[in-house]
Amino acid sequence: MRIVVLAGGIGGARFLRGLQAASPDADITVIGNTGDDIQVFGLKVCPDLDTVMYTLGEGIDVERGWGRSRETWSAKTELEAYGVEPTWFGLGDRDIATHLLRTQALRDGASLTDVTRMLTKRLGIRQQILPMTDAPVATTMETVEFGELAFQDYFVRHRWQPTVRAIRLSGIEQAAISPEARAALEAADVILFGPSNPWLSIAPIVAVPGMADLIRSRNAPRVAITPIIQGDAVKGPAAKLMAELGYTPSAEAVAAYYGDLLNGFVYDERDAELQIGGQRTTMLNTLMMTDADRATLARHVLEWIESWD
Amino acid sequence: MRIVVLAGGIGGARFLRGLQAASPDADITVIGNTGDDIQVFGLKVCPDLDTVMYTLGEGIDVERGWGRSRETWSAKTELEAYGVEPTWFGLGDRDIATHLLRTQALRDGASLTDVTRMLTKRLGIRQQILPMTDAPVATTMETVEFGELAFQDYFVRHRWQPTVRAIRLSGIEQAAISPEARAALEAADVILFGPSNPWLSIAPIVAVPGMADLIRSRNAPRVAITPIIQGDAVKGPAAKLMAELGYTPSAEAVAAYYGDLLNGFVYDERDAELQIGGQRTTMLNTLMMTDADRATLARHVLEWIESWD
Repeated sequence: MRIVVLAGGIGGARFLRGLQAASPDADITVIGNTGDDIQVFGLKVCPDLDTVMYTLGEGIDVERGWGRSRETWSAKTELEAYGVEPTWFGLGDRDIATHLLRTQALRDGASLTDVTRMLTKRLGIRQQILPMTDAPVATTMETVEFGELAFQDYFVRHRWQPTVRAIRLSGIEQAAISPEARAALEAADVILFGPSNPWLSIAPIVAVPGMADLIRSRNAPRVAITPIIQGDAVKGPAAKLMAELGYTPSAEAVAAYYGDLLNGFVYDERDAELQIGGQRTTMLNTLMMTDADRATLARHVLEWIESWD
Repeated sequence: MRIVVLAGGIGGARFLRGLQAASPDADITVIGNTGDDIQVFGLKVCPDLDTVMYTLGEGIDVERGWGRSRETWSAKTELEAYGVEPTWFGLGDRDIATHLLRTQALRDGASLTDVTRMLTKRLGIRQQILPMTDAPVATTMETVEFGELAFQDYFVRHRWQPTVRAIRLSGIEQAAISPEARAALEAADVILFGPSNPWLSIAPIVAVPGMADLIRSRNAPRVAITPIIQGDAVKGPAAKLMAELGYTPSAEAVAAYYGDLLNGFVYDERDAELQIGGQRTTMLNTLMMTDADRATLARHVLEWIESWD
């Protein structure tokens, strides 16, 4: 079975771990968000891709939810001693190895797709991880308090506390779906939208010109797993952001937001009272606290999809 | 007193520590070798400049003689795990902070002189450290066993074991003395050649077009401290290299090699039998084992120079 998963950061990555465990023989391709990429101290850092990569490569810091396990922070301490900005962006020493290789390969002319393939191969990852595009796209946040903020400025520096008025994707008009991402979507037996932040993680992927049409054109299960349970996000700013953008934070609003990109939607069994129309739906335990939870959720999602006629 | 010191790696750096202690009010400018610079994982590394900088900034690893004290090696371990070359070049995590800043500033258009000034200022170093030129110059070693080797390939990877036939300085014809180095030399009351490797550390500096003439034109004490004691180098390949290049390894041969660049030469009291002609000479204890030795040597060198009429 060929499964394509659209995924952002930690929520998507954890679901992917479950999917890997539930379906070890599946041919899994992840299409990852690159709108949150940042250039820091001359290094190209791809936080969402790296979170997926480190999670699947079993090198993630599980507690923190980003960066490498058994990390050291010597370079960061020195950069702070040198008095240079940004001091708020966490660049671990092990993590730096990844960014050095990526930056060098990009400078040598490789595409981000090629670089990511090289890195995942070296980390022993069987799944294919693809950036949503090889072109630079930057998510920027129009905030009440600070005006326009680059994504990591909003997310890390200001810990997603500013009030968001609007989200912009600079460069998106010039971005193109990579041949690899197109081929994966065209061949997919199932397309899953991970329980990632719909506005921050999935929207940039879907906004790549041609991506939404390509997904809609596929006569295959196209199923999202809600990142919202009982009106709140398990982690991160999804619910807060929905309220600021004028939505009622709920799984229902997420399903409506995705609209006809989907033909199936998974929401949480704690939300039994919700009435979600327009798509096939199922209720599952979507709260993933352990690896076992993740595998169970992924297995139930796949079983549900297989039950469609 | 304005002192300019030509210096390479660890020998020169240690002498500079002594000079700093012996003459705390002197206006000291170091002109450093950049022929051993290397681009590694996309980072611009300047081993000789960094050794001087870390030594004067009290951040050097004293035992090792290069890199930062209290260093960690997480990035290096990861780069090795990724299976990328060079695995033989030691890039410590604290050290990487320096290289990241340097690389980024150079890419933003700063000169190596500007970048070095920024770094030394941030490290609280009072002395001025200047690269011999802002142009790229690469020392390459023509060896019997491996043919042509880039300098760090010879020095670090092959631990200076290959037999050297000749040394080349690629790019030297296009290099120019920086305005800062020229001004320092023109204003110098004393010009010292540190006890660095004459062929590997000092020769590239002197080979910058116009540098030798500028030094010779100065009517000031121009004094070298021998790196050779009793026919051997305290550290590193100087004696081995001299033999390979057809010289008898001795302080005498070093003095002859520098020739009329100098008007004074300091050799070691263990070499009392040597007959060094053509320059003023003095014998001192040049073997620097402790900070006290370094300060004493520097003080004696300056006292000797002050005694000239």
